[in-house]
Amino acid sequence: MNILVINAGSSSLKYQLIDMDTESVLAKGLCERIGLDGSNIEQKAAGKPPRQSCGFGGDPGKVYKKELQLLDHVDAAGAVIAALTDGEYGVLSDLSSIGAVGHRVVHGGEKFSGSVVIDDDVMQALRDNIPLAPLHNPANITGIEACRAVMPNVPMVAVFDTAFHQTMPRRAYLYAIPYEDYESLKIRRYGFHGTSHKYVSERAAKLLGKPASELKIITCHMGNGSSVTAVDCGKSVDTSMGLTPLEGVVMGTRSGDVDAAVVQMLCNAKGISADSALSILNKKSGLLGLSKGKYSDWRDVKRSAQSGEVEGVRTAEVFAYRVKKYIGAYIAAMNGVDAIVFTAGIGENDDYARQLILENLEWLGIKLDAERNKTREEAVISADDSLVKVLVVPTNEELAIARDTKALVTV
Amino acid sequence: MNILVINAGSSSLKYQLIDMDTESVLAKGLCERIGLDGSNIEQKAAGKPPRQSCGFGGDPGKVYKKELQLLDHVDAAGAVIAALTDGEYGVLSDLSSIGAVGHRVVHGGEKFSGSVVIDDDVMQALRDNIPLAPLHNPANITGIEACRAVMPNVPMVAVFDTAFHQTMPRRAYLYAIPYEDYESLKIRRYGFHGTSHKYVSERAAKLLGKPASELKIITCHMGNGSSVTAVDCGKSVDTSMGLTPLEGVVMGTRSGDVDAAVVQMLCNAKGISADSALSILNKKSGLLGLSKGKYSDWRDVKRSAQSGEVEGVRTAEVFAYRVKKYIGAYIAAMNGVDAIVFTAGIGENDDYARQLILENLEWLGIKLDAERNKTREEAVISADDSLVKVLVVPTNEELAIARDTKALVTV
Repeated sequence: MNILVINAGSSSLKYQLIDMDTESVLAKGLCERIGLDGSNIEQKAAGKPPRQSCGFGGDPGKVYKKELQLLDHVDAAGAVIAALTDGEYGVLSDLSSIGAVGHRVVHGGEKFSGSVVIDDDVMQALRDNIPLAPLHNPANITGIEACRAVMPNVPMVAVFDTAFHQTMPRRAYLYAIPYEDYESLKIRRYGFHGTSHKYVSERAAKLLGKPASELKIITCHMGNGSSVTAVDCGKSVDTSMGLTPLEGVVMGTRSGDVDAAVVQMLCNAKGISADSALSILNKKSGLLGLSKGKYSDWRDVKRSAQSGEVEGVRTAEVFAYRVKKYIGAYIAAMNGVDAIVFTAGIGENDDYARQLILENLEWLGIKLDAERNKTREEAVISADDSLVKVLVVPTNEELAIARDTKALVTV
Repeated sequence: MNILVINAGSSSLKYQLIDMDTESVLAKGLCERIGLDGSNIEQKAAGKPPRQSCGFGGDPGKVYKKELQLLDHVDAAGAVIAALTDGEYGVLSDLSSIGAVGHRVVHGGEKFSGSVVIDDDVMQALRDNIPLAPLHNPANITGIEACRAVMPNVPMVAVFDTAFHQTMPRRAYLYAIPYEDYESLKIRRYGFHGTSHKYVSERAAKLLGKPASELKIITCHMGNGSSVTAVDCGKSVDTSMGLTPLEGVVMGTRSGDVDAAVVQMLCNAKGISADSALSILNKKSGLLGLSKGKYSDWRDVKRSAQSGEVEGVRTAEVFAYRVKKYIGAYIAAMNGVDAIVFTAGIGENDDYARQLILENLEWLGIKLDAERNKTREEAVISADDSLVKVLVVPTNEELAIARDTKALVTV
């Protein structure tokens, strides 16, 4: 069965077509600037033979690139079908070989603790969750509606960034705010990147040769957005992102944890609204803020830090320290840890970040092997005498979405 | 030498007179409703013999209580002198037996990393820090000015709640916000309760028979306001309160840590200003918020929790869990811990809170002794086989202020 995985943004639509018999990517692409001038689609088809589950490797594949008017997401979904079934650049003969569509949805609120087959009730629930994710859910909904218009007979599944974290106990998800505001406004910790945390924690359990139900794992999804999750017996019991993806560790342009009074001081000192203050914390902060506007990309921060430049050194210090504190906090939360897993752009590829985060944690039984830590692939990177195993596990959210989708449409 | 310790609020003035030869309290009192109707002073003089350093014990002493017009803090300072030198209820023959005055000042900003003798430059610096503590510093300044007016020839010292934390490294005190906002607005972590964290960590080192410079200590000041501090080699290296006393663990009416986006959602959902949202987080949250407005006092939460009432159970769970996570975070920050110290109203008196906070931390080498934990006095309360020592150490901020004051005026 071929499954189309869709990740719709407000003016973009990312997709992958995955052959689930081999779990290999047949094609992936992106529609950009939907509803704007200069909209276009770019698709890369896998060469033969496609490499399993980790993209295209050294195989070039065929690239399809086209500027065309995409007035809305329905146009974009149509363009995706056209590209996938294109005589020269496509990988499918026709629409009927798409068995199902899996949609990434950012916010499932408290209603969804797992993936679901999309029907009208689910669509209504997604709309009900818009206040919790005013930027993301409308785009996700638009993407689903567009695909339903273009492929009315193909079953579709919604996979939520928040679902994996719905197992968090009350002590972890409640904020100490007026309880009425939790009840009526649903203000609580939700957490995000759930698909990734679930995927890499399950993969780590396999690599460790133990059932997830016997393991305490801390997963560090470190990319442009980053979050840390405590996974106890296969279940998320706490995570660093909160009501929104702002809370937690330091990210590319997001501040992570701050005193809530920082919002007030920014508002009063600058004469701006809370919305504007939050925009500063979401878009001008994090690595970018600490480096005084110089670097929002960790690779640049690293280069700067390693050359001894003050902006880079300072930024790297704060970045790593905050992750370190979350690791400690989650060890306390779970009364122990068996493995720490790094994933996503920084987590998978950057030995320097991993080293800064895990250095000076010997008291907690955590010790990297400097040589093994150089890896950019799936590997155990802790020293042999490290009580806690440290692993690099590449994440694959698209594959996880496709697996959930397949499981739900083939029951 | 007798030292008068002053803690001035916006409409109140608390004081203690301490005989530093014996470190015993000669009298303590409170002026209330300064500048309002029904202003009054109440003072309790120590009976004989005064008990050392821990208040009055079972000895009643003489109580002086008077309703009188206190138009401002100068009136209040005058009333304090009158009470202390009162023929029947006083403890001093005249003003000349007050050797110095020590003032508690909430915010020393980045300028003060220790206590200082007050002069005009210091007064100016305190005024410069008003934007950082708009509620507290003006009251503290008013209190100092009043005492200088009434006792122009008595040397005075300012002791800052923030000073002990000025040793925090950059990685701990910087928020990941635009660096310009740190430079110009001084938005950073300051921390509070410094006098208490310093006092109890030093006392704990004495009790453990080791120099503070060889110890890693986590101090939990748990009262109506609460904060947790990592003290490495006698220096504060991180603390849970931040720019303001709002951040950190759950307090009586303060939320502690929240996603900064909670402020935005409160503003937008309720149509209120950031100031009003912060007022909710400071005054309607914490234990009070979690218990849905029922209890802001931990003793009531505890009673409710122990009786199985849902509001109390829920509130106690979140309260304890957050402290537990800070303990883990600071163990990671210091790469270990030798001792955990509990102090202040809840920390000193409540075995149930200590038990909830420290249960299920055996992996970290932390194990309470249930019987020892019943104490309300200075004691080691960890089990013999606990790798980490746990102690109860009653705090005494007034004595700490008096000691600093004495040290500075007798050089």
